[in-house]
Amino acid sequence: MILGIDPGTIKAGFGVVEIRDGRPCFVDCGTINLGKTQDMPDRLLFLHESIDALIVRYQPLAVAVETQYMMENPKSALQLSMARGIVLVAARKGGVPVFEYSPSKIKQAVTGSGQATKALVQKTIQTIGRLETLPAPDAADAVSIAICHGAHLAKESQQSLWQNQA
Amino acid sequence: MILGIDPGTIKAGFGVVEIRDGRPCFVDCGTINLGKTQDMPDRLLFLHESIDALIVRYQPLAVAVETQYMMENPKSALQLSMARGIVLVAARKGGVPVFEYSPSKIKQAVTGSGQATKALVQKTIQTIGRLETLPAPDAADAVSIAICHGAHLAKESQQSLWQNQA
Repeated sequence: MILGIDPGTIKAGFGVVEIRDGRPCFVDCGTINLGKTQDMPDRLLFLHESIDALIVRYQPLAVAVETQYMMENPKSALQLSMARGIVLVAARKGGVPVFEYSPSKIKQAVTGSGQATKALVQKTIQTIGRLETLPAPDAADAVSIAICHGAHLAKESQQSLWQNQA
Repeated sequence: MILGIDPGTIKAGFGVVEIRDGRPCFVDCGTINLGKTQDMPDRLLFLHESIDALIVRYQPLAVAVETQYMMENPKSALQLSMARGIVLVAARKGGVPVFEYSPSKIKQAVTGSGQATKALVQKTIQTIGRLETLPAPDAADAVSIAICHGAHLAKESQQSLWQNQA
């Protein structure tokens, strides 16, 4: 199992995929609502506990997150970074290694285009996961991040197979 | 007890002060070395565990941190923000409320000037704490943050006393 997390301090997305026959397959996704009304320490603690629970439930071999770049709104960037820190600690506490991918690599892995819109990512995840309704943007992003890591693993195992044969 | 924390991802300072006769008095300070060589999740987990241990040891009634502003180096700002997130979660997990003060208020509370240099802050903390050697900048900052919260509490209690008498 691979657990993708799209962190945030108001909502955070999670996505779980499993590698079957060398391909990442959809397992679960959702949104962790951190409650706008609670204060920041409460929200971050709830995020920490939610990720702990996901790790216990799915026993992932890896946690994947998007690489963070400085955004236009510095305050939002700093808040997102706090949430990212919580993800890293929760993963390490659970003994799960963390992998990072750039937004364009993630979109590329899921839609075939590094420039895909959020709507296309959501639609693609709905199709892949055979979901009745369109997943929320953060849940779709989290699944995409997990798929990207899965695709990376598959590529690596193909490469090492080729190297062994050479 | 008040626990001041100066977070970081390479080193973090801590400072403990106690309110005696309405005045903040020095108890302890130090530096948590997070190890440059370990990866970020390891360092953040070690920070989390270290703050847990300080809370268990000193049973503070409050944790105080400096307000974060965007720095010139965005990468450093994002890393500092991750460490701040860890402090907030560790404090909330320990049931301790967190208070924030601006850098200038902190310097003002300790040295009498909001524009004081780092060296003056270190020297002042050495004097207040009757320390044999100059404390490290992060440890001195952490004590200053705790003193600032202590001074704020003392001021509030004076104000409410005055209000009661009025």
